[in-house]
Amino acid sequence: MHAVNTLVIVDAFILSTISVSYNPMAFHANLGSSFNIQDNSKINTVVYDDVILNVGNGYDSETGIFTCRKAGLYSFSWTSLTPPGKSFETRFILNEKRIAGNRANAVGINQYVQGTKTVVVEMREGDTAKINTIKSQAAQSLYGDSNSFSSFSGIKVDDLKCEEI
Amino acid sequence: MHAVNTLVIVDAFILSTISVSYNPMAFHANLGSSFNIQDNSKINTVVYDDVILNVGNGYDSETGIFTCRKAGLYSFSWTSLTPPGKSFETRFILNEKRIAGNRANAVGINQYVQGTKTVVVEMREGDTAKINTIKSQAAQSLYGDSNSFSSFSGIKVDDLKCEEI
Amino acid sequence: MHAVNTLVIVDAFILSTISVSYNPMAFHANLGSSFNIQDNSKINTVVYDDVILNVGNGYDSETGIFTCRKAGLYSFSWTSLTPPGKSFETRFILNEKRIAGNRANAVGINQYVQGTKTVVVEMREGDTAKINTIKSQAAQSLYGDSNSFSSFSGIKVDDLKCEEI
Repeated sequence: MHAVNTLVIVDAFILSTISVSYNPMAFHANLGSSFNIQDNSKINTVVYDDVILNVGNGYDSETGIFTCRKAGLYSFSWTSLTPPGKSFETRFILNEKRIAGNRANAVGINQYVQGTKTVVVEMREGDTAKINTIKSQAAQSLYGDSNSFSSFSGIKVDDLKCEEI
Repeated sequence: MHAVNTLVIVDAFILSTISVSYNPMAFHANLGSSFNIQDNSKINTVVYDDVILNVGNGYDSETGIFTCRKAGLYSFSWTSLTPPGKSFETRFILNEKRIAGNRANAVGINQYVQGTKTVVVEMREGDTAKINTIKSQAAQSLYGDSNSFSSFSGIKVDDLKCEEI
Repeated sequence: MHAVNTLVIVDAFILSTISVSYNPMAFHANLGSSFNIQDNSKINTVVYDDVILNVGNGYDSETGIFTCRKAGLYSFSWTSLTPPGKSFETRFILNEKRIAGNRANAVGINQYVQGTKTVVVEMREGDTAKINTIKSQAAQSLYGDSNSFSSFSGIKVDDLKCEEI
């Protein structure tokens, strides 16, 4: 009787442990064609349309928004390439909170300029992550073509603690 | 009796497995205000003061030093934004060893310049990681404000093998 | 008898779970000396010769090619530093497929220019990953020295589902 009780506890342990490897979340999306801001008096969410990977189906290529389906620690990275004389400043937004910025600014430079940024954040189920432009002339043009210089990717690195254990 | 013995072994397995997900380490810290080098004849450790995430409490925002509390494979990334005409060259230092450099150099350029670098390293408990400037004019000014362009982040991706198993 | 049967199932679960943490794959390699393209009418694979880390022995410093030894979700990052007036455009190649580009272009700029890119991909055993230059004048010179500005790194973040469970 005691042994059977112990086995039930063991099962609970194992199931929660296995869930770690059973809920991967990862995506990589490139910008297939250039993203030009028509109205930089408002914030725009960048839509990376060329989806290379979408394990767990968190990234929506219609909206550019990643939705967390499994709580955990996530790493995200995004790269902006802006044309000569243009600029493209963006922010990583967790839900509605600004986490970090990424500056690709070629104003006064006769060359394409690339900027990359990585962030590490904690997400709960239903939390969203996206790349927003800023409301200013500093967000003008993001270069995209088949070379896939501009991109957005993310991956769940660790699950959060399972409270039920 | 045999069954009970087996259960003890199972418990040991489970505990070591669960420790994988029970010791997450992850941080993200931005630079909230600019970091200007007064004396570039010596090495300076960059102190990223605006802590966004610090799971496992490894990052010290007073010193800029991350201390490993759980052995494993870690990924780190840091971004430097330097003002027009300035430069900011840094190194990722594991304990006292230089692992890789990151160059943001705007000397001769009338624009802010951003540089990002990612490193993957193995760490043991007590090992430290930090971003050091170099001893030269190439380390002058790191731009920081509420836009959070300059940052330092890291995450444990894998635990090292548990020798006890 | 029932208890013993349950224990066998438990063992199978545990072994497959433990295999997750028992096959880490991670590498970091810097470019120790400059990589100048003699013939940019053909594609060249960049060989990062200064290996800092090679857990799982996937990276080959003779060829520059990483070979997957354990299926999973991988994150890779690479950084190019190109000298003033030069350029170095590269692609991340998964098997023979282009996944994303990284542009470091200093043509018309009297300064070194650095470009970094991160990709997240799924790999099966035997799959390869490498950094290729493009066939054009845009791939000329990658700067390398003991400062380790140019680098290539990767790490397995998650295993793929174990079909046997």
